[in-house]
Amino acid sequence: MSNWIFILDIIGTVVFAISGWLTASKKELDYFGGIIIAIVTAVGGGSIRDVVLGNTPVGWVKNETTILAIFAGIVIAILFHKWLDKLRRTLFLFDTLGIAVFTVSGTQLALNYDILPVPAVLLGITSAVAGGIIRDTLCNEIPLVFRKEIYATACLLGAVVFYASLQMGLDVVWSTILSCIATVSLRTIAVWKNIELPKV
Amino acid sequence: MSNWIFILDIIGTVVFAISGWLTASKKELDYFGGIIIAIVTAVGGGSIRDVVLGNTPVGWVKNETTILAIFAGIVIAILFHKWLDKLRRTLFLFDTLGIAVFTVSGTQLALNYDILPVPAVLLGITSAVAGGIIRDTLCNEIPLVFRKEIYATACLLGAVVFYASLQMGLDVVWSTILSCIATVSLRTIAVWKNIELPKV
Amino acid sequence: MSNWIFILDIIGTVVFAISGWLTASKKELDYFGGIIIAIVTAVGGGSIRDVVLGNTPVGWVKNETTILAIFAGIVIAILFHKWLDKLRRTLFLFDTLGIAVFTVSGTQLALNYDILPVPAVLLGITSAVAGGIIRDTLCNEIPLVFRKEIYATACLLGAVVFYASLQMGLDVVWSTILSCIATVSLRTIAVWKNIELPKV
Repeated sequence: MSNWIFILDIIGTVVFAISGWLTASKKELDYFGGIIIAIVTAVGGGSIRDVVLGNTPVGWVKNETTILAIFAGIVIAILFHKWLDKLRRTLFLFDTLGIAVFTVSGTQLALNYDILPVPAVLLGITSAVAGGIIRDTLCNEIPLVFRKEIYATACLLGAVVFYASLQMGLDVVWSTILSCIATVSLRTIAVWKNIELPKV
Repeated sequence: MSNWIFILDIIGTVVFAISGWLTASKKELDYFGGIIIAIVTAVGGGSIRDVVLGNTPVGWVKNETTILAIFAGIVIAILFHKWLDKLRRTLFLFDTLGIAVFTVSGTQLALNYDILPVPAVLLGITSAVAGGIIRDTLCNEIPLVFRKEIYATACLLGAVVFYASLQMGLDVVWSTILSCIATVSLRTIAVWKNIELPKV
Repeated sequence: MSNWIFILDIIGTVVFAISGWLTASKKELDYFGGIIIAIVTAVGGGSIRDVVLGNTPVGWVKNETTILAIFAGIVIAILFHKWLDKLRRTLFLFDTLGIAVFTVSGTQLALNYDILPVPAVLLGITSAVAGGIIRDTLCNEIPLVFRKEIYATACLLGAVVFYASLQMGLDVVWSTILSCIATVSLRTIAVWKNIELPKV
């Protein structure tokens, strides 16, 4: 099971790197800008979580898998640039799986520390969405996650389901499965039915 | 006295959460965006101070009071949305008290570490103003604090008064009172007399 | 030699503070905004590197030289404001030396921790360019470094040359010299010949 999470985590990293590169290309940044945006999109959320918890050096500086996954994402984005628009449905699936598993792994890591449940849930959501927030801020946009789709709300549901399942005595494997089903279902239904959160 | 600071600290957190929610509402963010902006406005400054000092996990993940105060602020902002415009003078008072006490508690916490006086003063100011800077940056505005009112300058005065009072042998209680009087007075007079700092 | 690095490090800090102040003046920020932008431009990159590595409290709160260098930069920017436009070539030289030495000192500090070479190189680049990225983001601009000149690419070359030289058995002094020559040469040639990276 932890191998399965590890694989989803890598997929999430690759997809976030792709989305960073594609955002950079819309803004006509140069190659260096694209690489930096891809990196911060992929590692931003986890880095903030690690720093807040005092879990330093943060994960990606100790582990070459993350860096390799990011560069794989960039190469994929460059090679398949023209096809990626047509593959939007596939990308959406990977992206949704990515945030689902980032939410679980972020929440679980936070619960390992001596912190309260609400902050642990918030740090789980942070792991999944903060990378995209930094990406949009650096590209001088109001972050997408604040404006469109029930994106972060799906992460919130997933994190709550994960924590509640653990509290009810389920093991980590089942809690993870239930959490991912919740996140993926809510986001898929929201996009399918074109549901948005009300404006403030 | 430390109870008194604790109460002012909570009031500061509530007011900052309200100001985050109101900023989000002007930008037509959705509910999730509003909640995130409220949280980062309220905890942003203290989190940066904690991370810079290596004081991790940062305060709000270990202490449920902060989270409760933020959600109280959001509920107040939602319920009294129409009246808050009319209550601007009351809000201004709370906000000014909030930054005054955030400046003191930030400076005092920094002085507990083995750091120099000037960085301690800077981290005190950071505690009070960085939340608002992050709020405005995420909402794609040049931060208000860089442009209007003698807001941060009042925090600077408060932090210097606090440090100088301690150095002159006053106890923490009196240093806190003098510092808060300095911050509140300067900001109130500046807004009242419409004084602004010269442009760079 | 380490005295020489120390001097270049101070020059880099002064020049970054000047560039922060000048950016603030273009945006018509007030004096407080100018001081904050000058500080974050000068210490932003090194602070992020320190926090990611868990090297806290971060450098500038333990060492008064950095603060003094920043205020020297601000004073220079205020006094010589009119001449600085004419001194652009001199400023460019200092700025290039500054990023060259920030790249070396950042990479070297990162290598002292138990991390991988690629993250060490990335943190060396971060030390040199993140301050400017924060400066531009706070001033509501897409960061210059993502759009113009082979600025960060020069840092990348410098960091790689430094790491490779150490690996090939050269001592720190020669590795530093080679790295700085590489960074300065690439940037100077790029600006001279008006070379830019291709757009994403």
